[in-house]
Amino acid sequence: MAPLDYKRIAEQFGTPLYIYETEKIRENLSSIINFITYPKIKVYYAAMCNNQPEILKIINDLGLGVQVNTVHELNLAKEAGFSSSEISFTSTGVSKELMKKLIEECVEINLDSVEEVEKFCTLVNNRTFGVRVKIDKKIKMNSNEATNSFLESNVGIEGKYFNKIKEIAKETGNRITGVHGYLASNVHDSKPFIQFGKFIVNVASEFPDLEYVNLSSGFGVKYSAKDKDFDFQHVLHCYSNLLRKLSKRIKREIVLKIEPGRTLMADAGSLLVRITNLKTLNPDKSEISVNAGFGEFARPKIYNSYHEIENSEITGKSKKVYDIRGNTVLQNDFLGQDRILEEVSEGDYLVLKKVGAYGIVMASGFPGKKLPKQILINKDKIEVIGKNRTN
Amino acid sequence: MAPLDYKRIAEQFGTPLYIYETEKIRENLSSIINFITYPKIKVYYAAMCNNQPEILKIINDLGLGVQVNTVHELNLAKEAGFSSSEISFTSTGVSKELMKKLIEECVEINLDSVEEVEKFCTLVNNRTFGVRVKIDKKIKMNSNEATNSFLESNVGIEGKYFNKIKEIAKETGNRITGVHGYLASNVHDSKPFIQFGKFIVNVASEFPDLEYVNLSSGFGVKYSAKDKDFDFQHVLHCYSNLLRKLSKRIKREIVLKIEPGRTLMADAGSLLVRITNLKTLNPDKSEISVNAGFGEFARPKIYNSYHEIENSEITGKSKKVYDIRGNTVLQNDFLGQDRILEEVSEGDYLVLKKVGAYGIVMASGFPGKKLPKQILINKDKIEVIGKNRTN
Repeated sequence: MAPLDYKRIAEQFGTPLYIYETEKIRENLSSIINFITYPKIKVYYAAMCNNQPEILKIINDLGLGVQVNTVHELNLAKEAGFSSSEISFTSTGVSKELMKKLIEECVEINLDSVEEVEKFCTLVNNRTFGVRVKIDKKIKMNSNEATNSFLESNVGIEGKYFNKIKEIAKETGNRITGVHGYLASNVHDSKPFIQFGKFIVNVASEFPDLEYVNLSSGFGVKYSAKDKDFDFQHVLHCYSNLLRKLSKRIKREIVLKIEPGRTLMADAGSLLVRITNLKTLNPDKSEISVNAGFGEFARPKIYNSYHEIENSEITGKSKKVYDIRGNTVLQNDFLGQDRILEEVSEGDYLVLKKVGAYGIVMASGFPGKKLPKQILINKDKIEVIGKNRTN
Repeated sequence: MAPLDYKRIAEQFGTPLYIYETEKIRENLSSIINFITYPKIKVYYAAMCNNQPEILKIINDLGLGVQVNTVHELNLAKEAGFSSSEISFTSTGVSKELMKKLIEECVEINLDSVEEVEKFCTLVNNRTFGVRVKIDKKIKMNSNEATNSFLESNVGIEGKYFNKIKEIAKETGNRITGVHGYLASNVHDSKPFIQFGKFIVNVASEFPDLEYVNLSSGFGVKYSAKDKDFDFQHVLHCYSNLLRKLSKRIKREIVLKIEPGRTLMADAGSLLVRITNLKTLNPDKSEISVNAGFGEFARPKIYNSYHEIENSEITGKSKKVYDIRGNTVLQNDFLGQDRILEEVSEGDYLVLKKVGAYGIVMASGFPGKKLPKQILINKDKIEVIGKNRTN
């Protein structure tokens, strides 16, 4: 792909501006899909990472399913063209009211607690559902780098309740056909995934009506040079082998499901921002203020996460050390600190990289701003998207 | 005020629902204003904490000024009826373009850097402006409890540049008439404020054209039983005395300005949520899922902050220990843990207290939800507000 002419884009669409590239989403899917050597595979896009209607349409065009966690997301998925059979619902604390809706909509549902299973089974007979299982706390993970880890939660059903839920299901003619597990978000080391995969597949074999195993995602993105390249080959080969063995053992072909979100979207999105001021901090360092911060992209503040920040064009000027902050009253609204950039001036543009996932969906405009605009670039076509998010 | 009938409100307006009470805002203002014994006082409401148009109108009716940090907030303030002379702009990294706008609008502006002063002075002559000064790092503060601290930032102009900015101003016929300082947000100990007040007033006396000293705010709210009651009397008496002494010394009456936000709004707002599921964690504890979490109220996740959670009505049932979480796919979307509540059932309501500041303004709906609704209660009148925030 040709490099983008950020200056022209900024002048045409304004800043701050999220820029998504359709081609990158396609590439990201291709780059992992070939590592899955197990034939019965079904990929669901985790809509939570970016649920803009136009992004969901691309995902639908790519032939993927979609994983949703709220009724609003379910509606967005339907509007984007997903049929019921392509939608998987996984959340926590599903109310009776919402469960009725999900049953009516005939979407796959993975239940998180004995209480949810009881509720489901009072509402309907002769249907199928999946269960989220509680992850073995023995699985070791460097939780500093990951977010949303199983270690800090009570998500999932414990093994000691499996007989109980099987009984509840049986009494009402319902069948537990899926086992779902979720490790954490943005884990770079492959070891925890291997342990996790083995654990889930082992648990899954306890369910006689099993049709699918959903290993969700959590695959880390290389946001900084310090991050490991995620070893998709290793992890997805392992998942494939585990499913092959399981299918052989129970003499039935079980579907392997995964739910990537960040993997597909992170580097398909950038945030183009404008420099509003330069402040000298000391002879060696200046502070760049830009027209975006926590309110447009929350990950640096919430997770202390690193995102590459680049000059929007190469000018050949000498390099300098900069802190980059939002031009807000918030004292510590930093997007990056101690970054080396070619020397910049007010009015120049910078680009935050790999913000296509967990970017616009966590934006609030705080403090005191409207939400950023968004465009989608598909080859030579540029489309303004997400109008329903701005206010 | 009579206790609210939350059940009726929930049935009428739906949940999750922010509920603001006009009377509380008035009370909160009254409860601090009498401690300011210095006569030349001007109070600006920090709009960043809650900039809903209807809230700004109340603030305007109360006769306060407003502190804004973006052009969007400036527009909201004007729409709410504030005149230019009642609006103070304090931010960082103000662009040339925005500065022109602020000059045109004739609002007071406090500049954060030498570079901003230079910019201002190339744009206009014979005008006045204030400066944000860099806070002395020797001021001791328990930064664990505070947010948005000066210790983690480069905000403000250092003393070594004062001669330079005075010269720049003089050359262009502009005058530095204000000194602004900002300590941190939600500080409970009064000691840092006393040190900070002395520091700022001392710095202010270096500016011969001085007309005001803005000590901003940062006054802590008692969110949990562990938090100290903020000693407004001590701090505001001290501020008053400092200004009295300064005015006497320089033989001119200097205006004392403060910018409370949280103080006025925090306990004027509650978030009413509905229980969507109960999950038994162990014989002693259950997990309550509710229809709001990080996406509706971000402080617990971002700052690990504590907010009281109460039953919406007293039933006299026995008490139990609960974790309270958003019913989302996020594994660690907790609003509170190990809270003691009267026993609850699905469909019951809970109330998060003191969420009127830094609540709706930080809401994103993440993951996968629309923004919560809001109502404003003024005696017997209930008004749905903030329609421009929902999408």
